[in-house]
Amino acid sequence: MTAQRQLKLGFILHGVGPGWGDWRHPNAQPNASTDFQFYKRQAQVAEAGKFDFLFVADSVYITEKSSPHYLNRFEPLTILSALAGATNNIGLVATLTVSYSEPFNVARQFASLDHISGGRAGWNVVTSWLEGSAANYSREKHYAHDVRYRLAGEYLDVVQGLWDSWEDDALTFDKKGGQFFDPAKLHTLNHKGEFFSVKGPLNISRSPQGQPVIFQAGASEDGKAFAAKRADAIFVSHEEIDAAKTYYQDIKARAAGFGRDPDQLHVLPAARPVVGRTPEAAEALYKELTELVSLDNALSMLARPFNEYDFSQHDPDGPFPLEAAAFGANSNQSAVNRIVAAVKAENLTLRQTALRFATPRGHFVGTPEQVADSLQQWFEERASDGFVLFESLPGQLEAFVELVVPILQARGLYRTEYEGSTFRESLGLDFPVNRYAGALAAAE
Amino acid sequence: MTAQRQLKLGFILHGVGPGWGDWRHPNAQPNASTDFQFYKRQAQVAEAGKFDFLFVADSVYITEKSSPHYLNRFEPLTILSALAGATNNIGLVATLTVSYSEPFNVARQFASLDHISGGRAGWNVVTSWLEGSAANYSREKHYAHDVRYRLAGEYLDVVQGLWDSWEDDALTFDKKGGQFFDPAKLHTLNHKGEFFSVKGPLNISRSPQGQPVIFQAGASEDGKAFAAKRADAIFVSHEEIDAAKTYYQDIKARAAGFGRDPDQLHVLPAARPVVGRTPEAAEALYKELTELVSLDNALSMLARPFNEYDFSQHDPDGPFPLEAAAFGANSNQSAVNRIVAAVKAENLTLRQTALRFATPRGHFVGTPEQVADSLQQWFEERASDGFVLFESLPGQLEAFVELVVPILQARGLYRTEYEGSTFRESLGLDFPVNRYAGALAAAE
Repeated sequence: MTAQRQLKLGFILHGVGPGWGDWRHPNAQPNASTDFQFYKRQAQVAEAGKFDFLFVADSVYITEKSSPHYLNRFEPLTILSALAGATNNIGLVATLTVSYSEPFNVARQFASLDHISGGRAGWNVVTSWLEGSAANYSREKHYAHDVRYRLAGEYLDVVQGLWDSWEDDALTFDKKGGQFFDPAKLHTLNHKGEFFSVKGPLNISRSPQGQPVIFQAGASEDGKAFAAKRADAIFVSHEEIDAAKTYYQDIKARAAGFGRDPDQLHVLPAARPVVGRTPEAAEALYKELTELVSLDNALSMLARPFNEYDFSQHDPDGPFPLEAAAFGANSNQSAVNRIVAAVKAENLTLRQTALRFATPRGHFVGTPEQVADSLQQWFEERASDGFVLFESLPGQLEAFVELVVPILQARGLYRTEYEGSTFRESLGLDFPVNRYAGALAAAE
Repeated sequence: MTAQRQLKLGFILHGVGPGWGDWRHPNAQPNASTDFQFYKRQAQVAEAGKFDFLFVADSVYITEKSSPHYLNRFEPLTILSALAGATNNIGLVATLTVSYSEPFNVARQFASLDHISGGRAGWNVVTSWLEGSAANYSREKHYAHDVRYRLAGEYLDVVQGLWDSWEDDALTFDKKGGQFFDPAKLHTLNHKGEFFSVKGPLNISRSPQGQPVIFQAGASEDGKAFAAKRADAIFVSHEEIDAAKTYYQDIKARAAGFGRDPDQLHVLPAARPVVGRTPEAAEALYKELTELVSLDNALSMLARPFNEYDFSQHDPDGPFPLEAAAFGANSNQSAVNRIVAAVKAENLTLRQTALRFATPRGHFVGTPEQVADSLQQWFEERASDGFVLFESLPGQLEAFVELVVPILQARGLYRTEYEGSTFRESLGLDFPVNRYAGALAAAE
């Protein structure tokens, strides 16, 4: 008997919400993004809902024009480390950029989080796409897109190499003999590459998962290649199920092409469920959400993937200015491509584009049954292996856990208890054998 | 009526212990350095003892010859973030090197920790003195000593500048008007210096303490100048009370020379209390400690401040090889100077030097009353404003909290309840006014 394929769920912790105007909702707590108690409550609700993981997004550059949810928020590793102590089973995925950090520090921090949480650490590897970021890191220019992905590959080589510094049984703790560890099982990386020279070894033992879980969220050609080769899970955005299916098949085929088992790579699109007791109630909630965003706000939000292009110079009711696409070439390519495709397909005005982008509707607005049906369709038709949920409006996480999760469970699509103690076990990922295990000490 | 001057206490969380052989003690838990539950228990015991703060030391380079307590340990910010959720009042001081990190990231992480903990973050600013560290960070050479302190000063300028990006009341949360913040109270740093160019602003609001507390642990001339000018507390090591008094007076005079109130700078020597029910019991415990370290281990430990000088090439029972001092010139100068001074004063052999350095005895071995007497003497004779306690042997933290703390409290030297909710309030430090507060928006 083969166990039924199980849907995977993550929740993106966004404090005040994932959109520009969310903080203005009557029930929103506008200081939520720096309130530990708020994060802790959400984490515990998601864990009660047996979610696979919590996810914290990030960016490292703001201006006074940035959205409120970018202006003021926790650094991901710090808040997830704090949440490690307040949760027991749920995975903890922190976004961290390879463009502006040191692999030795990052390897230590994720290994520490994996130890602290008993094997629940995940790293969402990003390269940062806001060109202004360079100015916060003593750099003249942000790395070009292709350089960023080459750097990301080498960076991950270093970090994963450092995570194998100690074999799983390297620490022997022989008090009588005075031997703390077996020197044959401690390995020095001696990495020398295009971007980094890192000797090692890491000053922390191999962590419970062996290697923390790797997430990737880039949807450009370079991003897809990177994900198919290196990631355990991909976080992606799609407007339509057909595009999602095409993407899913492409990624799985690429993974197989790298000699990987495609089931060891989870494709997880974003979902923004809006759950109401009736279809009309759900639509009313979604409408409430759209009304929180002004055109000015929506234009500023649209500017972000276009490297802060000034859309306010154009007539909002004229056609979308396609020349802006060039400004996003080294920025968030996948978002730019998605927007431009929609503009062309539907002949959208600037106003329509901005408002749709600011409060994307998606396919998960409805009653608990309707939302469960849509999730099931995406999952069973292989548009996804699960979802990363955004809370569109205050209270929607609770509504999802109370009303939608039991339906998914009743249909046998979703766990009723955690499978094991580590995040890898939740995701059904193999334990990664240490690269040095079994090697003769002399061969080092 | 003036309140009596109060002694300040920190506890250094070291997992398996602060010495080479501690893990070999029969009661030691050898995997303690990566066991969150162990750290949580110690944190909660220290908080029950009304300690001012927890302190986590750090280093960023190991070899297979390093001491067990360096080989395997948590990254400081990660573990202290996890402990923030498990404690309520105690300060959380993380060591983090300016030589191998980015000020924008570090400013965010400490600001995040300050928010998460409700105002309990502290940063022990270090420059790293192990020359091998460079090899883990794609650098050919470690910075020279004087360069490190110039860099540290500029780094702190950047971080403290970023912490003031948002004035305390910058976030207005006006839902009706759609104004999330007052643009006149958001400030862009635009730092351009010798080592760093950092634009800002920081993407997190001003934290509960305004500015996290700054610790400094260098005892070189550059280190002392830096501490007197910039630090809120200094963590230092002294063998003898007379040297400690001289140091104390010097630092306080230097602080006054910089126009500071000397009471706003706490001088906190390390203390390694060994508490027994009788003087003989305490001496027996100390002897147990010394017997855990072999000569080989002690020589390797001694090598660390001397930049891994190979002491094993010398006869252990011959005179200490003074030529080794040159190898420590760009490393841990203060430790080297302390060791060399003791060698010259007492004509020590290499073996005597190594064993004494590996298990320093200090002045706090005895009955609870004897230990309290010594602490009181150091405090009242102005050799210190308090202490950073090391746990020499398993169970000594509990013994100190149960047996010594009540004596200090009964003598009116030490708090019975926390004074407020932030670490600054525990230390009696002023709240730092935002550098931009009250400035006209036009003057920005």
